[in-house]
Amino acid sequence: MAHALRLARRGLGNVWPNPAVGCVLVRAGRVVGRGWTQPGGRPHAEPVALDQAAGLARGATAYVTLEPCAHHGRTPPCAEALARAGIARCVTALTDPDPRVAGQGHAILRAAGIEVTEDVLADRARDLQAGFLSRITRGRPFVTLKLATSFDGRIATALGESRWITGPAARAHVHALRLQHDAIMVGGGTARADLPALNVRGFGPVRQPVRIVVSSRPLPDLPVEGPDHGPLWQMSGRIDAILSDIAGRGITRLFCEGGGQLAASLLEAGAVDQLAGYGAGVVLGADGRPAVGSLPLPRLADAPRFRLVETRSIGPDLFHRWMRD
Amino acid sequence: MAHALRLARRGLGNVWPNPAVGCVLVRAGRVVGRGWTQPGGRPHAEPVALDQAAGLARGATAYVTLEPCAHHGRTPPCAEALARAGIARCVTALTDPDPRVAGQGHAILRAAGIEVTEDVLADRARDLQAGFLSRITRGRPFVTLKLATSFDGRIATALGESRWITGPAARAHVHALRLQHDAIMVGGGTARADLPALNVRGFGPVRQPVRIVVSSRPLPDLPVEGPDHGPLWQMSGRIDAILSDIAGRGITRLFCEGGGQLAASLLEAGAVDQLAGYGAGVVLGADGRPAVGSLPLPRLADAPRFRLVETRSIGPDLFHRWMRD
Ligand SMILES: NC(=O)c1ccc[n+]([C@@H]2O[C@H](COP(=O)([O-])OP(=O)(O)OC[C@H]3O[C@@H](n4cnc5c(N)ncnc54)[C@H](OP(=O)(O)O)[C@@H]3O)[C@@H](O)[C@H]2O)c1
Ligand SMILES: NC(=O)c1ccc[n+]([C@@H]2O[C@H](COP(=O)([O-])OP(=O)(O)OC[C@H]3O[C@@H](n4cnc5c(N)ncnc54)[C@H](OP(=O)(O)O)[C@@H]3O)[C@@H](O)[C@H]2O)c1
Repeated sequence: MAHALRLARRGLGNVWPNPAVGCVLVRAGRVVGRGWTQPGGRPHAEPVALDQAAGLARGATAYVTLEPCAHHGRTPPCAEALARAGIARCVTALTDPDPRVAGQGHAILRAAGIEVTEDVLADRARDLQAGFLSRITRGRPFVTLKLATSFDGRIATALGESRWITGPAARAHVHALRLQHDAIMVGGGTARADLPALNVRGFGPVRQPVRIVVSSRPLPDLPVEGPDHGPLWQMSGRIDAILSDIAGRGITRLFCEGGGQLAASLLEAGAVDQLAGYGAGVVLGADGRPAVGSLPLPRLADAPRFRLVETRSIGPDLFHRWMRD
Repeated sequence: MAHALRLARRGLGNVWPNPAVGCVLVRAGRVVGRGWTQPGGRPHAEPVALDQAAGLARGATAYVTLEPCAHHGRTPPCAEALARAGIARCVTALTDPDPRVAGQGHAILRAAGIEVTEDVLADRARDLQAGFLSRITRGRPFVTLKLATSFDGRIATALGESRWITGPAARAHVHALRLQHDAIMVGGGTARADLPALNVRGFGPVRQPVRIVVSSRPLPDLPVEGPDHGPLWQMSGRIDAILSDIAGRGITRLFCEGGGQLAASLLEAGAVDQLAGYGAGVVLGADGRPAVGSLPLPRLADAPRFRLVETRSIGPDLFHRWMRD
């Protein structure tokens, strides 16, 4: 299952509106097929692995990071495909919360006489599937807020100079994180000030993330959609409504890159699931631009709290990642 | 020498105005004596190790983290004591820059027919001796600036609430750092707002650091000097003058704990050698109190830069340490 989870990870940011799933087929202690959800969300992981295994799938055990689907969409359901291929046993990490599946995948397998083991490495699978699970169960994407700041929490000098606070290694790392998200969001202020590219560079041809600008005013000239730039969506209104609209359009993982005012709106709405901080060894002082705008906080105890999950150096900079509890 | 450096470390914060030195005596592959500078700066490391070794010092090799002293003070010079004890060889990490020594310790040893090897693990010794070296060569102490901030670089809410942003483990760690410094410094604003104790707690009876308040106004009621609180010095004027005064009084390692205005003065004067950051997983927003006051920075390239040397979690918080290049 750990192997299947590693395969599944390859699909993150690449397969929305579908979940990123991994599948490993093992017969007599040998891996006979491996698959993961393909760019755009199809084919699913299971048919890819079955194709690879061909006849060797008969009698095999399938390790799948999510319950195989049970509904007839553009392709027949994966649960039926696994049964038809004659696998003997299916081990899954999570039950699919999508109401069109919700246990029916497991039921199809059992009805076909296949032994089913559920909830294996479920915690790790839940982390991996946080975006898909959030979209289905909370009606909004999993939200990462990224901030690149000075030692004292500033994102630009008093005069607005911000290129570059962090070094090239940290900026390359940002592109790797963008790659794992379905969409990138910025506020109108950032769109106007920086005319940001909001794309993934340095990883060859990839499915570019959707660009979302939150603004109620006409947008500045941003690059048109194409191989190097994802679709451009302008949105405005209440943050909750914006996020549920985004989830409705299929986005599971959202990467917000500021600025300070949009970051504050997201935090105030309790909508930030993960903080990704890049800290540079530079001090800008109190006149520098703040990383996060005003938050109404009568007491310290009211401030949003996050749990440290990772810290390390990236080039000369500090990377630190925190999760909402 | 690595062993001697570890012993030397025990003296940090405890032996000013003297350097924290370690000494290991080895005869025939066996450690026969270990010593480090004792609280208050005397006895020195060498006589402690020689006392322990007694007759076994004859023919031994002495590993000493700093050139043995050559001047007659309250006690006879250590270089002579080592020679009298009949050691065969002396390995040192650094030449003492104190003009009263400056190579004469090595000369006394050589004149006594002892083989001398210099500059072993010199870089590590220089790090360890940064305070003493700074006092002698730059006429000011080695300065550490500590900041405990929210994810967005704030040290208190808009209403001034700052207890507690970081958790108990980080606060205990601060006491361990205080213990390794000769003096703790705060600005008048912090002294008035927090009436801080500025002492070391949780380590049993220790030599308490000197408390320095930078203020030109009468001080609030702070605890009087005693077993639990070091001497209280009030200072004001230009930062350079304050630091050279402090060094003149013997302080080698200074720990500044804010507030924002004093931190900015130190940074502007280019006087900060090390940043010790504690980051909590809390966001306070732009109305929170800034960690560092205003700095005049026409361009990003003018901002003071530091190099990341350590990052890890301490309890729920992030600890990150940076050194001036
Ligand atoms: N170092 C870094 O990591 C980094 C990252 C990003 C930005 N920056 C800097 O930050 C600065 C921009 O930050 P900022 O705080 O001024 O602007 P911002 O947060 O990017 O944008 C604020 C704007 O977003 C729109 N907005 C926010 N919430 C909204 C909502 N709920 N509904 C509708 N519109 C909403 C509004 O746009 P309209 O007024 O158009 O309606 C508002 O004026 C720039 O200088 C940029 O360079 C630095
Ligand atoms: N979370 C944390 O880690 C932390 C740490 C420390 C403080 N704090 C908070 O920070 C706030 C205080 O910060 P602050 O920026 O207002 O004050 P501050 O920096 O502590 O003190 C400023 C004062 O220091 C004196 N000063 C500074 N440089 C001087 C110089 N070169 N010569 C003479 N005097 C000098 C002046 O005092 P006079 O006016 O008396 O002359 C000045 O008013 C408090 O709310 C405190 O709770 C938080």
